[in-house]
Amino acid sequence: MTNNLSFLMKENSSILENELEKYVNVNNSYGLNEVMAYSLLNGGKRIRPFIVIETSKLFSKEFDIRKALPFACALEMIQTYSLIHDDLPCMDNDDYRRGKLTNHKVFGEDKALLAGDSLLTYAFEVLASNKYVSDNNVRLATISLAKYAGFGGMAGGQMIDLNSAGNIKSFEELKLMHALKTSALIKCAVVLGYLSAVDTPDKEIISDLEKYAESIGIAFQIRDDILDRISTSEKLGKPVGSDEKNGKTTSLTFMSIQNAEKEVQRLTEEAISIIKKYYGDTDSFCSLVELARYMVNRTK
Amino acid sequence: MTNNLSFLMKENSSILENELEKYVNVNNSYGLNEVMAYSLLNGGKRIRPFIVIETSKLFSKEFDIRKALPFACALEMIQTYSLIHDDLPCMDNDDYRRGKLTNHKVFGEDKALLAGDSLLTYAFEVLASNKYVSDNNVRLATISLAKYAGFGGMAGGQMIDLNSAGNIKSFEELKLMHALKTSALIKCAVVLGYLSAVDTPDKEIISDLEKYAESIGIAFQIRDDILDRISTSEKLGKPVGSDEKNGKTTSLTFMSIQNAEKEVQRLTEEAISIIKKYYGDTDSFCSLVELARYMVNRTK
Repeated sequence: MTNNLSFLMKENSSILENELEKYVNVNNSYGLNEVMAYSLLNGGKRIRPFIVIETSKLFSKEFDIRKALPFACALEMIQTYSLIHDDLPCMDNDDYRRGKLTNHKVFGEDKALLAGDSLLTYAFEVLASNKYVSDNNVRLATISLAKYAGFGGMAGGQMIDLNSAGNIKSFEELKLMHALKTSALIKCAVVLGYLSAVDTPDKEIISDLEKYAESIGIAFQIRDDILDRISTSEKLGKPVGSDEKNGKTTSLTFMSIQNAEKEVQRLTEEAISIIKKYYGDTDSFCSLVELARYMVNRTK
Repeated sequence: MTNNLSFLMKENSSILENELEKYVNVNNSYGLNEVMAYSLLNGGKRIRPFIVIETSKLFSKEFDIRKALPFACALEMIQTYSLIHDDLPCMDNDDYRRGKLTNHKVFGEDKALLAGDSLLTYAFEVLASNKYVSDNNVRLATISLAKYAGFGGMAGGQMIDLNSAGNIKSFEELKLMHALKTSALIKCAVVLGYLSAVDTPDKEIISDLEKYAESIGIAFQIRDDILDRISTSEKLGKPVGSDEKNGKTTSLTFMSIQNAEKEVQRLTEEAISIIKKYYGDTDSFCSLVELARYMVNRTK
């Protein structure tokens, strides 16, 4: 990661952390705030809200972070709810996430379920209460968040995963699953950032931004598959070779490492060329270009 | 139930059923539509959407059902998601609902969880896509739906229930739990109906409508407690005396049947007097007045 990008991500994360803390600092939740806060304030890179804020910067005449922040927080709440529910025994049955006990291991399955539901619901309240953005853009943002998180987006991707029971038949199906499970919320991030920045949204720009997001999402996933094969557990900070050991279908089931690396390169260049349409083809720092590079060149 | 009310409820239900079917008739959900439809199209009295539509009628200069229907459907999706999640093994662990196997008994816990999440998410998409209502009212409706369904509303009520582990200390605490678990979505119904009807919402009217909803919600619940004690299982269509047998705290833990009946009467009259402020104190048929009477005089 370049120093500039790393600095910017830390800066954004700290603003976001502060804002999320305020959002869950409520008195009238009968203890649900504590259960939500446990997972919501669990650190992490906060990539999706970062993209919301940076897309807002790119398209704003005069950038005002107050326009982007509620959208960024809403999206992080959706991401967190999905992790809490994914970790439940009836789904992935995970005991740890980022080195900490999962939500249901601390509070019990019933409260974890309820906290996930509450975060999902709260996301829409936070988003719709964004008073710095027009009513029309709030409406569009609400529809976007619901579509990308719902059965045609993230939840749909999880359904493909459940239906396949680990047995994905083709690279196309695998790409579709990742496009939904991973890229959908990244797409949502660029769209929400854009809607926080402009008065009259342009459908073509939205479509371009979605392509950028889909490309970096899938490239990120393929890079993950490659690292699991070629990295060491010291470098990666988690066990390697686990995909092969678990017989999991990954992009390397369908192509060689060399071709996977080429595919990652192609997707990254595609993503960067889209942003350059709007940023200009200069060599000066652009966070969304750097983010695309980072997500595919990373070694952990 | 009067014939007029019964006729109107059937008429509304059939319009609603038709609309809900259209909403879940989607192709791109990877099978989630089937899991959602199983619970969403499971009949029931559809009381909440009925209230949305009838409140819209009461406050519309020229009633247009297309304004109310998306809000009514969104609310029914929220109600359905909450039932699916409530039935899960980690919550109430119920095998049957309305005589049919619960969602997770048919599709498995993982898909039931996902279908609940998807319905909750879809509710906001359906609500925000209501093109017959102004952007501002859609924004207000989104915030309302999220507040009433979330930690300060229905989910909060469930949290009180979990925290108490069946041991509610006072009638006030019991009323609060029911106000959240039951009345919150009824409040939401009157607010959504009102927002679908007027151009410039009036806060005082909203506050009045909320009082109406809270009163009939709590009266309904106390009536439930009374029927469980005095009715027969033939009349009620479900076992009676189960509250006492399970040592469950109900309003009758804190008051005699006579006083409970008086409280129901008082709440009903309070509710009716609010509606008469807007409908006029005439003897002609008013659905919201009749509904209040029905909910408390019912024998099953």
